[in-house]
Amino acid sequence: MAGTDKTQESVMGGPSVILVEPQLGENIGFTARAMMNGGLSDLRIVKPRDGWPNPRAEAAASGAGSVIEAARIFETTQDAIADLQRVFAMTARPREMIKPVATPRDAATEMRALIGDERKVGILFGPERKGLDNDDVAAADTVIQAPLNPAHSSMNLGHAVMVMSYEWFQAGDDTPGRYLSEGRTGAATKEELLIFFERLEAELDDCGFFHVAEKRPIMVRNIRNIFQRADLTEQEVRTLHGIVSGLIRRHEGKSIGESND
Amino acid sequence: MAGTDKTQESVMGGPSVILVEPQLGENIGFTARAMMNGGLSDLRIVKPRDGWPNPRAEAAASGAGSVIEAARIFETTQDAIADLQRVFAMTARPREMIKPVATPRDAATEMRALIGDERKVGILFGPERKGLDNDDVAAADTVIQAPLNPAHSSMNLGHAVMVMSYEWFQAGDDTPGRYLSEGRTGAATKEELLIFFERLEAELDDCGFFHVAEKRPIMVRNIRNIFQRADLTEQEVRTLHGIVSGLIRRHEGKSIGESND
Repeated sequence: MAGTDKTQESVMGGPSVILVEPQLGENIGFTARAMMNGGLSDLRIVKPRDGWPNPRAEAAASGAGSVIEAARIFETTQDAIADLQRVFAMTARPREMIKPVATPRDAATEMRALIGDERKVGILFGPERKGLDNDDVAAADTVIQAPLNPAHSSMNLGHAVMVMSYEWFQAGDDTPGRYLSEGRTGAATKEELLIFFERLEAELDDCGFFHVAEKRPIMVRNIRNIFQRADLTEQEVRTLHGIVSGLIRRHEGKSIGESND
Repeated sequence: MAGTDKTQESVMGGPSVILVEPQLGENIGFTARAMMNGGLSDLRIVKPRDGWPNPRAEAAASGAGSVIEAARIFETTQDAIADLQRVFAMTARPREMIKPVATPRDAATEMRALIGDERKVGILFGPERKGLDNDDVAAADTVIQAPLNPAHSSMNLGHAVMVMSYEWFQAGDDTPGRYLSEGRTGAATKEELLIFFERLEAELDDCGFFHVAEKRPIMVRNIRNIFQRADLTEQEVRTLHGIVSGLIRRHEGKSIGESND
């Protein structure tokens, strides 16, 4: 079934993530975890404030230790991007420079095309407090700006990496927007539904539920619609038959009890 | 220009975010910040482990203090969703139950439609370590599962909220995928480009750059293509004229110097 036949195999690769002068080790760890979620593997760090390795980064990585272990440290942004062929810069603030600006979604689609074409691609993320400086933005080919609440568009560093990592994965994913979860035994056929409907309506006739005859057709339609909307499985139709049987028995029991009063 | 004419006005509203038994105050703060980024305002918390208010949540909220201040605390998930009409549950693990599963993107589009239709909508997020329990998932109408690296699909709590908050905003946003940043003085006309090309080529003729006559046409085409691709502004064409003038002066100076040798 769609969305359920995926292997548990890890899918790693994608653009390099370059953190420029990150301040908090936790954020480096959160970055690694976000990268792992989206299948990104190459982490580069320019002058981490608290040195390297950083135990706080390792603690926050939670399952993404391999990304932290493989991370490389650089002295300058220039060194960190030297081998790349296309560089994106994620920033919340518009800059006074003429540069293509892309949404995360559009940028991720372009990255898929570039990497499919064997180009080496990276994304720059700035320090927590002030973001990328203008020279770092100028070094990039394209600015990525996420459409967000204009009054509060600055994301937490780990969140910004998560958005790009998520969009990278979405750009290569074909999960349908909506599907039914696994565990389903198979959708009921229209005949199975009809048998249930007719049985239910016969029981309701018996107990006097349809006491206003001229309203019966519309009531039947409304009741059938309730169950149609539920998009029932064969197993669920069996469960509904059981419910009807149970309610009849209870009713019969009650009648007996009542007759004993 | 597209994407640049937005006001700084805050756009708040959207689905309620319900954190079920969150453990770390930091994650509640990160949640508030992510909500603010996406314009979500209603935070509900079921039994926060470390009580409420929580100074760590306030510290991590960074600019989203208003979301923290307005947060409401509930004893059970049932209480927290009592007034809602449609509930989504975000989870990384598939569950053994038959339930519609949507991607964050599809769910966000549906939420826009529901809220546009005046329905009260909420999204459940589980505790950090184990996620939502099955009863909480069963209480929801729809499960949201983000397509992510199958081997590492479990997101940090704040990251999961960020993805939904981001998708909520995208579903209502019309920023084009790609545009040119502000600060642009206006694209150059073809005539301005042509004047520059012809001047450059005349100077290159003068200095003997096109010394193989039969190669001149293809070299001219290649050079024009370089500048065409740059999608120049009028100001940038003026800058290029200045560069050519500067290089000629330098060349003239050199010639004088050389003739003095």
